Amino acid sequence: MTTAATDRLLDDLAGSGPGSGQGSGTGPGSGTSAGARTSAGDVVVDPEVLASYRHDQAAPGLVPAGTPVAVVRPRTTAEVQHAVRTAARHGVAVVPRGAGSGLSGGANAIDGCLVLSLERMTDVVELDGPSLLATVQPGLVNAQLGEAARREGLHYAPDPASYEFSTIGGNIATNAGGLCCVKYGVTRDALLGLEVVLADGRAVRIGRRARKGVAGYDLASLICGSEGTLGIVTEATMRLIPPPRSAATLAASFPTLGSAGEAIAKITRSATPSVLELMDRTTIQAVEKMAPQGLDEDVDVLVFARSDLGGASALRDVDQMARWCEEAGATLAITTDEEAEGRMLMAARRLAYTALEHQGATLLDDVGVPLGKIPALLEGIETIAARHDVLIGTFGHAGDGNMHPTIVYDQHDPDAVARTRQAFAALVRLALALGGTVTGEHGVGLLKRDFLADELGEAHELHRAIKHALDPAGLFNPGKGI
Amino acid sequence: MTTAATDRLLDDLAGSGPGSGQGSGTGPGSGTSAGARTSAGDVVVDPEVLASYRHDQAAPGLVPAGTPVAVVRPRTTAEVQHAVRTAARHGVAVVPRGAGSGLSGGANAIDGCLVLSLERMTDVVELDGPSLLATVQPGLVNAQLGEAARREGLHYAPDPASYEFSTIGGNIATNAGGLCCVKYGVTRDALLGLEVVLADGRAVRIGRRARKGVAGYDLASLICGSEGTLGIVTEATMRLIPPPRSAATLAASFPTLGSAGEAIAKITRSATPSVLELMDRTTIQAVEKMAPQGLDEDVDVLVFARSDLGGASALRDVDQMARWCEEAGATLAITTDEEAEGRMLMAARRLAYTALEHQGATLLDDVGVPLGKIPALLEGIETIAARHDVLIGTFGHAGDGNMHPTIVYDQHDPDAVARTRQAFAALVRLALALGGTVTGEHGVGLLKRDFLADELGEAHELHRAIKHALDPAGLFNPGKGI
Repeated sequence: MTTAATDRLLDDLAGSGPGSGQGSGTGPGSGTSAGARTSAGDVVVDPEVLASYRHDQAAPGLVPAGTPVAVVRPRTTAEVQHAVRTAARHGVAVVPRGAGSGLSGGANAIDGCLVLSLERMTDVVELDGPSLLATVQPGLVNAQLGEAARREGLHYAPDPASYEFSTIGGNIATNAGGLCCVKYGVTRDALLGLEVVLADGRAVRIGRRARKGVAGYDLASLICGSEGTLGIVTEATMRLIPPPRSAATLAASFPTLGSAGEAIAKITRSATPSVLELMDRTTIQAVEKMAPQGLDEDVDVLVFARSDLGGASALRDVDQMARWCEEAGATLAITTDEEAEGRMLMAARRLAYTALEHQGATLLDDVGVPLGKIPALLEGIETIAARHDVLIGTFGHAGDGNMHPTIVYDQHDPDAVARTRQAFAALVRLALALGGTVTGEHGVGLLKRDFLADELGEAHELHRAIKHALDPAGLFNPGKGI
Repeated sequence: MTTAATDRLLDDLAGSGPGSGQGSGTGPGSGTSAGARTSAGDVVVDPEVLASYRHDQAAPGLVPAGTPVAVVRPRTTAEVQHAVRTAARHGVAVVPRGAGSGLSGGANAIDGCLVLSLERMTDVVELDGPSLLATVQPGLVNAQLGEAARREGLHYAPDPASYEFSTIGGNIATNAGGLCCVKYGVTRDALLGLEVVLADGRAVRIGRRARKGVAGYDLASLICGSEGTLGIVTEATMRLIPPPRSAATLAASFPTLGSAGEAIAKITRSATPSVLELMDRTTIQAVEKMAPQGLDEDVDVLVFARSDLGGASALRDVDQMARWCEEAGATLAITTDEEAEGRMLMAARRLAYTALEHQGATLLDDVGVPLGKIPALLEGIETIAARHDVLIGTFGHAGDGNMHPTIVYDQHDPDAVARTRQAFAALVRLALALGGTVTGEHGVGLLKRDFLADELGEAHELHRAIKHALDPAGLFNPGKGI
């Protein structure tokens, strides 16, 4: 952009330019009636501050990150509408952003774009206990929604690993999963309704407050997981649930992939754990190196499970899982219904990614396969690690087939970087060959775009038709997601 | 249509006309390569048989039903593609149909349309036990999928009241609910992937086999509940779950709406029943008249709940619910962990609709409200019954706020029919006024079209944009759903 063009954009964003108030302003809560001097909220142009909005947490250097012309930080739906209309008028792409904790580059800036950061829209608009729902602004952090629910004696289920800092808006953009989604579902399952600002600046409400409903198309599910490419979420009505009962925990070690696979298969076919996780030998060794847990490093796979049926039922449940583990060949299977002890058993799993990060630069993958293909996926990962001479530590959600094989590499060694890229591509292709998906919960962003066509096949065009119908000018997050 | 035009259509459908094989035939499994003489499957033109395909189970006389020019009953995806391409070429609307058990007129024929009945596509294409999924053709009956899952030691959760005769394709078209969806989710929650024939005749695969995935937009959720307006489902991959544990049952009677509402609120906030139902005094009296159950007719509301936590845990769970019922003012609360006795307790609920049908013609409504608004909905229904001088029996899914107030009327009394229409409209508006939805699980079809704009508001246009993007000529089920 020329300096003059940038100045005109900034003037309009601030509501002082000639263009302000030109929007059609018909959306509910728009507040931008013709002629009003509405701003887009706090507008940032300081280069140092802009730099901190260039990228999310995707492997730096492996996905591009541009420089935005400005960052706006609105506080209201009307300010979001003003920013979107202004950007549209100036032909400037809009990149929405929550906490910037994404792992696929979905929130990375594009050169000359407007970053629309929802970080200041953090209100709990309504918490309706009797209806078990909460309406929140998109910048509210997941854990804060959890806290608000808890104060009402209720529970917000989705628990991505980033729950202490990622936002509900970001969770919706990626349809974030987490540990508990094996039992309680992903973000989409908790989503009832949305207010969304469309590419033409209108704010519309989609979905519902009732728990069940089939009037019209399920547009809330369509927006969920669309990675900011279809509209800007300005309000979300999320479903709450009764607080889970007390949980019991199992940790079991297996000498082979096969024996672990057999135990996981038995558990998924016969029980409903609230958590079912695994980590492989490379990850175990990394954890042991960083923070010794007394883990047996000769173990091939550790499996973790929890049951939250409450009290003695939960313990009986994990005890039964432990017996299945032993029948499958586990060398050790420990259970407990003490929460503190359960946390200790799960500590190794929680440290998995951090421990791998301690070994070097990491490229975290996020593939998913049908449940029956988990053993084949784990075997294939070992083959890929050997073939490309890279270190891959794998951990992930055994209960839904979503695995995070993580390549540890030396980012200063060009040859290692090249091998890492090759191994990464091989991992994604392996998942597809097993009937799986290129991304289970992190999103396509920029990181997985090259592989998307292989997964979507002829339907890819259908996805593009939806994008074109809602955002014909390609205003929102162009080049990301689909 | 002229006779000549009809003859040309029928020739093309049979694969003997000049137009056959003109489709582009690029879809997977299409089999209609250029020049091939593909038929659209069995083609029916016998007027008596056509008549049986004119309408579904929506209140006859209250929604229009046209006469189709023909019915095709394909057995393969390729035959569906051929039928769709032929209809498109001839400018003839396509009305898809499963078992015809819908309750909103969604499968009602339009004059001169082609009814595409999927009743012969009944194969279980694949049952992958280790991956807990089944791929089936759309004409398979829900109960048959349940049976196939059971043979693998697994369970298919969605259980609409029509499960013994409704099809998976129809269940997907309406996003059917059921009794167990309070715990296990609706049809959409069990849907992983689809093969869909689009308006241009291509067959595309959307969704996935993995349990979790976020590549591209959630088009499977978009198709689910779209009432045959976006494409024809030719194959569906459904998620299976471990078989539920043994269940215990509670039945409780309440002297007032308020006391029942209080008990329901406590249960929904504090427990996870696998069934939570209610029926009102009018329905109780109808059941008692048809098949005396020894129900106390002075009772205002009966509440039914089940817990399937297994054995003693399930019984403890419903015993706890019974105590909450008593605290709220229940006059009686009975629990049992004997399945036969549980079925007897639930018998009155299962007979509800049949019993109301025994009293006269019925117009079944299907509104949904946020959980906290159930008492207000029940009170409002009583007011509407009194104001419009109609008999309304209400039963439904207390656990998700989806209620079926059912107007019983004399269809031969024009004044009664007029009052019924007015009361029906008042019921729908009441649900909207309470922040609810015009349809919880039966679909918009024709029955709810007049009310849809009130629910969707400004977003209605967005729904139409999606329809236009996928079916620009309005080939599929025009005038239904959105």
